[in-house]
Amino acid sequence: MRTIDWVDGAVEIIDQTALPGRLTVLRLTTVEQLVTAIQRLAVRGAPALGVAGALGVALAARRSTDPAAAVRLLETARPTAVNLAWGARRAAARLPEGAEAVLAEALAIRDEEIEASAAMATRGADLLVELCGARPRLLTHCNTGALATVVGGTALGAVLELHRRDALGTVVASETRPLLQGARLTAWELGRAGVTYRVAVDGAGPFLMARGEVDAVVLGADRICANGDVINKIGSYAHALGAHRAGIPFVVVAPESTVDLATPSGADVEIEDRGAEEVLSADRLPALGGQPPVPGGGPDAGSAGPDDQSTGPDAGSAGWATLDAVNPAFDVTPHELVTAIVTDRRVIRLDRGERV
Amino acid sequence: MRTIDWVDGAVEIIDQTALPGRLTVLRLTTVEQLVTAIQRLAVRGAPALGVAGALGVALAARRSTDPAAAVRLLETARPTAVNLAWGARRAAARLPEGAEAVLAEALAIRDEEIEASAAMATRGADLLVELCGARPRLLTHCNTGALATVVGGTALGAVLELHRRDALGTVVASETRPLLQGARLTAWELGRAGVTYRVAVDGAGPFLMARGEVDAVVLGADRICANGDVINKIGSYAHALGAHRAGIPFVVVAPESTVDLATPSGADVEIEDRGAEEVLSADRLPALGGQPPVPGGGPDAGSAGPDDQSTGPDAGSAGWATLDAVNPAFDVTPHELVTAIVTDRRVIRLDRGERV
Repeated sequence: MRTIDWVDGAVEIIDQTALPGRLTVLRLTTVEQLVTAIQRLAVRGAPALGVAGALGVALAARRSTDPAAAVRLLETARPTAVNLAWGARRAAARLPEGAEAVLAEALAIRDEEIEASAAMATRGADLLVELCGARPRLLTHCNTGALATVVGGTALGAVLELHRRDALGTVVASETRPLLQGARLTAWELGRAGVTYRVAVDGAGPFLMARGEVDAVVLGADRICANGDVINKIGSYAHALGAHRAGIPFVVVAPESTVDLATPSGADVEIEDRGAEEVLSADRLPALGGQPPVPGGGPDAGSAGPDDQSTGPDAGSAGWATLDAVNPAFDVTPHELVTAIVTDRRVIRLDRGERV
Repeated sequence: MRTIDWVDGAVEIIDQTALPGRLTVLRLTTVEQLVTAIQRLAVRGAPALGVAGALGVALAARRSTDPAAAVRLLETARPTAVNLAWGARRAAARLPEGAEAVLAEALAIRDEEIEASAAMATRGADLLVELCGARPRLLTHCNTGALATVVGGTALGAVLELHRRDALGTVVASETRPLLQGARLTAWELGRAGVTYRVAVDGAGPFLMARGEVDAVVLGADRICANGDVINKIGSYAHALGAHRAGIPFVVVAPESTVDLATPSGADVEIEDRGAEEVLSADRLPALGGQPPVPGGGPDAGSAGPDDQSTGPDAGSAGWATLDAVNPAFDVTPHELVTAIVTDRRVIRLDRGERV
C-alpha cells in the first residue's frame, strides 16, 4: 500500500488525519481537493509532499483551464518543506509537452522517492551501527515512515531496516505535539511492523538522553539548507540540544530532494505558524489525570455537601476565551548540532567538517 | 480562595483535574481520600503538597486509630517532591502533644507558605527585571501559581507581580504534556488575572528562545538538591538547554521548604514514572488537525467511492494494543544550567558561584 499514488486518473492518499483509528483512502480528483488535503495534513511528510505537488500538476494538466494558477496554488499550499514546490515545479516544467508528459514526470518523481527510501534505509542503518555499535537504542521524532514518503520512509525506514536485520535495540517515539504524528503515525507504523517501542512526551526526550537511555536521535527533515541547518518538525531542535549535551549522535535522514542549496541557512526559511486551534485542541482532552470530571467529585472525593461550588462567569470558560497560542510547525537545528545527514546518495558527516 | 485549606474539621481543595472547565471544591474527611486526591493530582504543586501532607496528619490525629500508618501513607503518596514528606513529618512530630497541636503545626505550615509566596513574588519580580531589564518576555512551564501553593504562587507569582507593577512584557505558557498543567492551569490563572499570554507546545520552547522571543525562563521546583540541581516537571531540562544556548537566564522560584540538603544531587532523586495511561490519553484527542474523522472524508475530501477502505484487524487498534510509554513526571536540570534560585528568604546566584 502506498501513502500517495496515481490511480485511474486521480490522486489517492491515505488519510493521515484518521489514523490510527481508521485506515481510509481518499480519492482526489481536483487540485483544490488536493491542496485542502495538504493543508489539513491528510497527506504530509516532505517526500510525500514532493510527490503530491507533482501529481497535483498532473491533475491540473488534464483538467484545469489554467494549469499555471494550479501550480501556484500547489507551490504555496504550505511554505516550509521545500519538496512541495520542488515537485510541483519539476512537473510543471513539462507542461509545454502536454498532460501525459507531466504525468510521466510526476510518476518518475514518485518512483525516485520509492528508490530513495530503500537507499536511505540501508545507508541510515549502516551509519547508526557504525556510530552506536550493535543494537542501538534510538529516539525519533514526528513521523518519517512510509506515511511520510510513498513506501518505506526516511529516518523510520532506517529504524525498520535495523529491525529487519535483528539489529535494533529499543525505540522511543517522541509524541510530537500538537498533532501527535509520533504517537499516532509512528506508533502505528512501528506496531504494524512488529517493533516494540515506547512513546514519550516531547519534553522527556532530552532527559531520557541524559539518563543514558538513548544511543542516538534519528529523524527527518523538511528542508536542508546550504550550510547544513536542518528544518524539521517543531521539537527537533530541543532533541538536538539534548543529544549534544549527552554526547550522542543526532542523525538526519532525508532524500536529496530535501536539500535546498538556494537557501543559505535556517534564518532564511519561512517557518509556518499553523495557528492556535491545533494547540487549543488540548482543551478537548479528558480532564487532568485522564478521568472525566464528575460533579461532586469521583468516588475518591469526599462528600460534596454545601461546600461544592461551580464556577461563576468569571472562571473556567472565561479564562479560555482569552487563550492564544504560538504554534510554529517547524524549527531550525543549527548545523553544528547535527552529526550526519544521510540522503539516498551520500552520508554527509557534518561532525567531521563535511559540507552539504 | 485558597487551593487547600482546613475548613470545619476537614481538608478542602480545589479539584485541579476539573479545571479549566469547572471550579469545584472537594471536601476530604479521611487520610485515604486525601492520599487518593494527591495521587490523581486533584491537589498538586510542591508547596501545596507540603500543606496537604501536614493537614493529612492533622486529619489522622483526629480520626485515625493508627496515625503513624497514616503518616507513612502520606509521606509516600508521591515520591519526587520533597515537600509532601517534609510537611507530613513536621506535623507528625507534634503527635505526642495531641491532635490540636498537630493541627496548629499544619496551619502554621499553611500560613508560612502563604507568606513565602508573597516574598517570592517580590524577590522574583525584582530579579527578573535586574536580569532582563524592563518588561521582560517570559516563558514558564507547568503550573506554579496559586494552584500550586495556597494562594499567590512561586514562579507564576513573580510573573503576576510584574503584571501588577505594569512591568511585564509577554508570557509564553509551555503546555506541559502529558497532563497540560500549563495549558489548563497556568492559562486559566493568567486569564483570570487579566494577563495576555500565549500557549506553546513544550517542544517549541527552545526554538522560541533561539528566535529571540523570550528574555528569560522562570519556573518552579519540586526539589532543590544540595548541589543546586533542580528537580521539576518533565520538560524543564529541555527549556534549560534552550535558555543556555540562547544565553538567557533560567530562574527557579521555590520556597525554602523545597530545598533538600539531605539529597546531594539530582542523580539521587527517585523520578516518579506515572505510567503509560497519561501519555496514551492522547489517543482520545480529536483526529489529527483537530477535525473528527468523517467516514468517506470531510467535505474537502474527494468522492469516497469504492476505493474507500476501512481497516482490517491488523490496523488501527491493533497498533495501539502494543503501545507502551515511558512517562517520567520530572526531570533533573543540572545546577550549571541554572542562573538563579529565588526562595522566600534569599536569591542564590548559581551563575556567580553561590551555593545552595
